[in-house]
Amino acid sequence: MPRAVKRTWGTALLDRFQRPAQVVVTGFGLVILIGTALLASPAATTSGAPAGLLTALFTATSAVCVTGLVAVDTETHWSTFGEVVIAGLIQVGGLGIMTLATLFTVLVSGRLGLRARLSAQVETKTPSMADLRVLVRRVVLFSLMCEVVIAAVLTTRFAVGYGQPFGRALYLGWFHAISAFNNAGFALWPDNLMRFVADPWITLTIAAAVVAGGLGFPVMFELYRSWRRPSRWTVLTKITVVVTTGLLLIGTLIFLVTEWRNPRTFGPLDDADKLLAAFFAAVMPRSGGFNTVDISQMNPSSWLATDVLMFIGGGSGGTAGGIKVTTLGVLALVVWAELRGESRVNVGHRRLPESLQRQAVAITLMGVSLVAVSTYILLVLTPHSLDEVLFEVISAFATNGLSAGITADATPAGHILLVLLMFIGRVGPLTLGSALALRERTRRYELPEERIIVG
Amino acid sequence: MPRAVKRTWGTALLDRFQRPAQVVVTGFGLVILIGTALLASPAATTSGAPAGLLTALFTATSAVCVTGLVAVDTETHWSTFGEVVIAGLIQVGGLGIMTLATLFTVLVSGRLGLRARLSAQVETKTPSMADLRVLVRRVVLFSLMCEVVIAAVLTTRFAVGYGQPFGRALYLGWFHAISAFNNAGFALWPDNLMRFVADPWITLTIAAAVVAGGLGFPVMFELYRSWRRPSRWTVLTKITVVVTTGLLLIGTLIFLVTEWRNPRTFGPLDDADKLLAAFFAAVMPRSGGFNTVDISQMNPSSWLATDVLMFIGGGSGGTAGGIKVTTLGVLALVVWAELRGESRVNVGHRRLPESLQRQAVAITLMGVSLVAVSTYILLVLTPHSLDEVLFEVISAFATNGLSAGITADATPAGHILLVLLMFIGRVGPLTLGSALALRERTRRYELPEERIIVG
Ligand SMILES: [K+]
Ligand SMILES: [K+]
Repeated sequence: MPRAVKRTWGTALLDRFQRPAQVVVTGFGLVILIGTALLASPAATTSGAPAGLLTALFTATSAVCVTGLVAVDTETHWSTFGEVVIAGLIQVGGLGIMTLATLFTVLVSGRLGLRARLSAQVETKTPSMADLRVLVRRVVLFSLMCEVVIAAVLTTRFAVGYGQPFGRALYLGWFHAISAFNNAGFALWPDNLMRFVADPWITLTIAAAVVAGGLGFPVMFELYRSWRRPSRWTVLTKITVVVTTGLLLIGTLIFLVTEWRNPRTFGPLDDADKLLAAFFAAVMPRSGGFNTVDISQMNPSSWLATDVLMFIGGGSGGTAGGIKVTTLGVLALVVWAELRGESRVNVGHRRLPESLQRQAVAITLMGVSLVAVSTYILLVLTPHSLDEVLFEVISAFATNGLSAGITADATPAGHILLVLLMFIGRVGPLTLGSALALRERTRRYELPEERIIVG
Repeated sequence: MPRAVKRTWGTALLDRFQRPAQVVVTGFGLVILIGTALLASPAATTSGAPAGLLTALFTATSAVCVTGLVAVDTETHWSTFGEVVIAGLIQVGGLGIMTLATLFTVLVSGRLGLRARLSAQVETKTPSMADLRVLVRRVVLFSLMCEVVIAAVLTTRFAVGYGQPFGRALYLGWFHAISAFNNAGFALWPDNLMRFVADPWITLTIAAAVVAGGLGFPVMFELYRSWRRPSRWTVLTKITVVVTTGLLLIGTLIFLVTEWRNPRTFGPLDDADKLLAAFFAAVMPRSGGFNTVDISQMNPSSWLATDVLMFIGGGSGGTAGGIKVTTLGVLALVVWAELRGESRVNVGHRRLPESLQRQAVAITLMGVSLVAVSTYILLVLTPHSLDEVLFEVISAFATNGLSAGITADATPAGHILLVLLMFIGRVGPLTLGSALALRERTRRYELPEERIIVG
């Protein structure tokens, strides 16, 4: 072995990243299995009777994949031990996703979505192992710090505004901070967050947590470092911020228009609360998955808008699901270039490489195909209508967790399909996008290319 | 004017093709207006009372755009004069589409989808005016010959099998031959072709006419010339034939599975007739638009499958609508190349140019956006459910004409939306694809590129 090098856990880890798909799939699968075992134990339920294996599997998958679809009501069915297990699974799943997504962003782009490299010494395209270790530490610290801040606000509100004893308020604040920042959508009330529809302390905090977690570490880090100089942002940050803002505005407007007079959703609210509820409903498809109005009572047109927003999802380097706003942004830029008859797709003095455009196409088409086939299967398996089934399928695929109400009474076959969708939706676009981008070896130079992660 | 050349109608026409979008839009608009005026006259209705302007506009648009959606029953509402007007509009619309699509294919690819040029003398990329005149004559002759053959078969069957007097049989045969070959979907029975569900003479003839018209002239011509040497087919023909065959097989299978036991569709039929009806139902989304079972009684899963098939539509150089099988084929090849990690999209020793890939993306995304926005609007405007509205919107956009039953009782606003959808769906993807391909000036040479038309 003439070129043998000393193998540290570092080089071993780097080696593994040549096969990122396997690492991710195996890792998530293992955590789900452990979670299933824990949730299937008698200690995990309020009643003391062990939950069915499918219920445990469904809940564990939903937690690890930070989806938030529930087959049983979280508060009443699971004991405090069960709830802590769920929160733990969300934390492990969310941190795993954010760390992996950030690592992939760095490995794909050769940098951290920052003008400067992580350490000035590094001149090569591939970051060193030390860089990566620093990076992972930063991601974890950043996540935990965000969660602490969110938990503090929520705890204060639960204690002061709702008269909860401090211990209970802290527990509620901690659980929902983890659930919100990791875009998981689990809540400890049977009506999710509907009782807080007119409470901006709760809903705006949760919405901010969902957006922050869903933007992802690379974008959040760059915004933190240079939020005053948008012209110097990387393409990843530019696209993410522009598309996110656009979707939030359009979404808020659509829900205001469609639900304004609906007596079972926005109808009883005063105008300011309508705006708050519409904004919340526009944020959650990014893939927060909480709800402050009864989704099942929304108009079919609102469901359709939610379907589209859920399918798009959030940012590439965070805990959100869906095809990601970056993918949509790349596709929109392609269409725009076509309409203008330009032979290159440029954005902000950078050219989007053709391989990136193809990745965006591949991710979107595979997502559409997966949703279409799953919807067809679920339509055949269950008596529900297209709007209900489509909503639930997209929610599972985009690891969103909003529900039109059929998850609870789906058949076992339906539950298994949703479990598969959550899992594929979680690991699929991420690993696909990254694996594809890492695989390409040849590079050509015209305008300087800029690689961003999609999916 | 040092470079003035003698302007013939030929060079003038060629000049116009620098702005193909305007020519097409103006042309279709004019024919629709003339058709509306004719159908709004008292002579056009059975009752002698002039049809409402919106009804006339809807029917004229549906006929010229060869869609086949009807706001009123064709047989009972329109007089023989009205029916002849409708057939005339279908013929003009269908011939216009096929001629334009063929011309664009030639102008884009520099050849007629044949190994040899149209005339051996031509060495330049741009075909001469004489070439184009020959081409138009061939397209018209080809269409009329096909229609005569189809009409002959149908007339014989109506006369011999159903005891119609010869004059009536000829009229029915002629009308439905025009309607079928041009993918228009108009029929002179209130139940469309449901009474012929078990009659292979009628249904297979209509299906063959729809497929032939929907493949388009360039592909049909190449199949006629060199059907024994598939390896020498152009990429256009290869993709069209492979995707068409695949969709027909998958469609037949899906309808067999989903409708086999449905007592209101396939249930009462014997097994052979079930196969016949499933095949017919799989052909019609290509955009024939006839039906031999009651679409409104199909399962929602069948509607979803039909939605997808309608959206895809037929071939690029013919009378079909939708994003076209070529567009789907190009996208599928892009995904396949991505999955294999190839940096080029090759098919049959040819490289698909990046501009073509971007066109396919642009056409598909604009189609999806148009359908999503229209569906949202129609959901807000009407009390119908998502599956019904989505079906009708895709049917209109893809100029298909199949109906889940809501077109008849859509509101005036709904009818206007459907008119716009039919018009945009008809001229949009075609002119978009062609205009975009014609606009590009620079060419690069790596593998020899092959241009095909998409949309
Ligand atoms: K979620
Ligand atoms: K049609």
